Amino acid sequence: MTSFLLADVRPWGGAAVDIRVVDGAISDITPTGPAGGSGVAADQQRIDGRGLLALPGFVNAHAHVDKSWWGQPWVSYGGEATTQGRIAHERAERDKYGIPSVAGTQAVLREFLRHGTTATRTHVDVDLGVGLRGIANVHEAAAALDGAVDIEIVAFPQDGVLRRPGVLELLDQAAAEGATSIGGLDPASIDRDPVGQLDALFEIAARRGVGIDIHLHDRGDLGAFQYELIAERTVQAGLHGKVNVSHGFALGELPPARRAEMVDQLGAAGISWTTVAPVNSAPLPWREMRTAGVAIGLGTDGIRDLWSPYGDGDLLQVARQFARLHGLRADEDLTYAIELATTHAAPFVHRENHGLTPGARADIVLLDAENVPDVLVRAPRRELVIAGGQVVVRDGELQA
Amino acid sequence: MTSFLLADVRPWGGAAVDIRVVDGAISDITPTGPAGGSGVAADQQRIDGRGLLALPGFVNAHAHVDKSWWGQPWVSYGGEATTQGRIAHERAERDKYGIPSVAGTQAVLREFLRHGTTATRTHVDVDLGVGLRGIANVHEAAAALDGAVDIEIVAFPQDGVLRRPGVLELLDQAAAEGATSIGGLDPASIDRDPVGQLDALFEIAARRGVGIDIHLHDRGDLGAFQYELIAERTVQAGLHGKVNVSHGFALGELPPARRAEMVDQLGAAGISWTTVAPVNSAPLPWREMRTAGVAIGLGTDGIRDLWSPYGDGDLLQVARQFARLHGLRADEDLTYAIELATTHAAPFVHRENHGLTPGARADIVLLDAENVPDVLVRAPRRELVIAGGQVVVRDGELQA
Repeated sequence: MTSFLLADVRPWGGAAVDIRVVDGAISDITPTGPAGGSGVAADQQRIDGRGLLALPGFVNAHAHVDKSWWGQPWVSYGGEATTQGRIAHERAERDKYGIPSVAGTQAVLREFLRHGTTATRTHVDVDLGVGLRGIANVHEAAAALDGAVDIEIVAFPQDGVLRRPGVLELLDQAAAEGATSIGGLDPASIDRDPVGQLDALFEIAARRGVGIDIHLHDRGDLGAFQYELIAERTVQAGLHGKVNVSHGFALGELPPARRAEMVDQLGAAGISWTTVAPVNSAPLPWREMRTAGVAIGLGTDGIRDLWSPYGDGDLLQVARQFARLHGLRADEDLTYAIELATTHAAPFVHRENHGLTPGARADIVLLDAENVPDVLVRAPRRELVIAGGQVVVRDGELQA
Repeated sequence: MTSFLLADVRPWGGAAVDIRVVDGAISDITPTGPAGGSGVAADQQRIDGRGLLALPGFVNAHAHVDKSWWGQPWVSYGGEATTQGRIAHERAERDKYGIPSVAGTQAVLREFLRHGTTATRTHVDVDLGVGLRGIANVHEAAAALDGAVDIEIVAFPQDGVLRRPGVLELLDQAAAEGATSIGGLDPASIDRDPVGQLDALFEIAARRGVGIDIHLHDRGDLGAFQYELIAERTVQAGLHGKVNVSHGFALGELPPARRAEMVDQLGAAGISWTTVAPVNSAPLPWREMRTAGVAIGLGTDGIRDLWSPYGDGDLLQVARQFARLHGLRADEDLTYAIELATTHAAPFVHRENHGLTPGARADIVLLDAENVPDVLVRAPRRELVIAGGQVVVRDGELQA
């Protein structure tokens, strides 16, 4: 069923409407009549929205769906708690858990759907051990779900780039075969050559016409210096709107004047930012970033992998954590956090139109909530989830 | 029904047992037989635990159940975002929302139950406007729920103590009438007289034989100085084990050497600590506090009141946030966070025995989880909640 009438729902908590879905897309939206959900053609199915609040499907702008042990017996955390320690631990242990796998990826994507996420940008490990197998797995898992979760892939050199000869060629091959972006990882602290890694990544991106989405954990001035290198190269390569920094913890830590200059430089270069809103991280200067045009995306990061046992794939929890971390309390600011998880995230999955509007893919989440701030602070159960016109969740439960 | 057999549950994720409940208390615990839940006397009811994981009821060690607008239409956040601003805003606006009220308190307590909280220490506003009416409301609301939520009351001078002549007398009266503790509030930054407020509170506590639970938001050295004043007076007044600091943000912020001395002083004085684990607060030195015998309790703080629109009353979410804030990842540490929300919190509601053990009040939460770390990181639905021997939640839904 990808054509139906979703009757009597309240988009963003507003007045009740009927949403007509045809061939997996929203075709039109009309006020719900006094009888509720009138206007059903005889040959068309009707879903009763019961006056629930409707939001666009959530967009997870930073995930790692390829390497979770979700669905397997509990894996106790091990290894050393540093970035390098986690990388080594993962490479040593992943075979034991059959990581990466199609089944594991599919388990994660299903959990995303259960929580209302209908599109995700996912980093997928590319290294000398797994080659491009992880990417193939993700494509296969997504196809097995009939494309319910719309996927954008970043070929991610989790084990380093320059320090692992052969990885650049894998990234180049991934870009040639359809990855939308190539990734990078701490050019200074992991590869020990920030200019070298960045030049190599930008060379591939410019030649292949793909984007770059780079993990940058480095703090303070070392982090900031690499943001500058990235901004300079983005302008030189003409990649405005195609480069993203993931994590970027240093930005919130910079002294105000330096931070303001940096935000302007990022905005001018058309660089976006994704955050998983870690507790105990420095808040981002989100108002200044909004003014400067630096788009912010929210992500879950990995869930249940060899890096961390945390994560449940619920982007609403990330939005709430973002809101608390940034001290948001006014209704319009609480609503902004939900926009980051939905409409504002469209660029992270290369959508022109992601929202409850005609022409958009029919990605719709229904929640039993009074208004959008109420959604944010309670993160209630997803009553109904529609993904690409398919009903994938009813009463909080995944459908077969 | 307060006598029954709860069959086939896994306490703390261990082997399956049958828990016999008689007159609202756990009477005995036996391994589940091969048939599952054998040993039911003919006159006794049996509840099928379906092999679910069982925990003791959650203990919320820091709540404000008297002044929420939970259950009312959404109230947009207003007023100035400082402690003094929030106090003034609340006093100016509360009448408009009928705060405090029995119905509002009951709505909060029911939400606590839905999430598995069966005991709470709650601060209740006592001031020149409401007098002791808030305390009476809480008693009435708790009684209307047949005592399902076991309540311990702190008479809380939210509007200040010395600066509001008459409040000390109200605290004294509350102590005489059964409040287990009297509260205090930022003796320096609100009352402008730390020694004066503390001396007055300790005089009442020593004379009435009650405890003290003091809100302390002050940071840095000003916060630490007041911890010292409190520790000195606790020792002098012989109130070992009866004094608690709520929030105490400064403790995590002190330089390591000063912090270590402070933790030792707090432990020697028998002072405990409650935290709501705010994102972006300095982590507590919890290992050192454990060694020194400084008990830590977890609380939700207020939910949906005129201070903040946040909060859903789910203590598991607080435990998870505590765990993330403190970087807990090993299984034993994730389990510790759950212990803070359950067994370790017994002193905060003056229980000798709070756990899944014979003699304890039958406060039991069932969850569909593999093990205790899985409970912490997913905070899944509460399948069944038993409070004082009453089944109050089934399949995640509150019973009438």
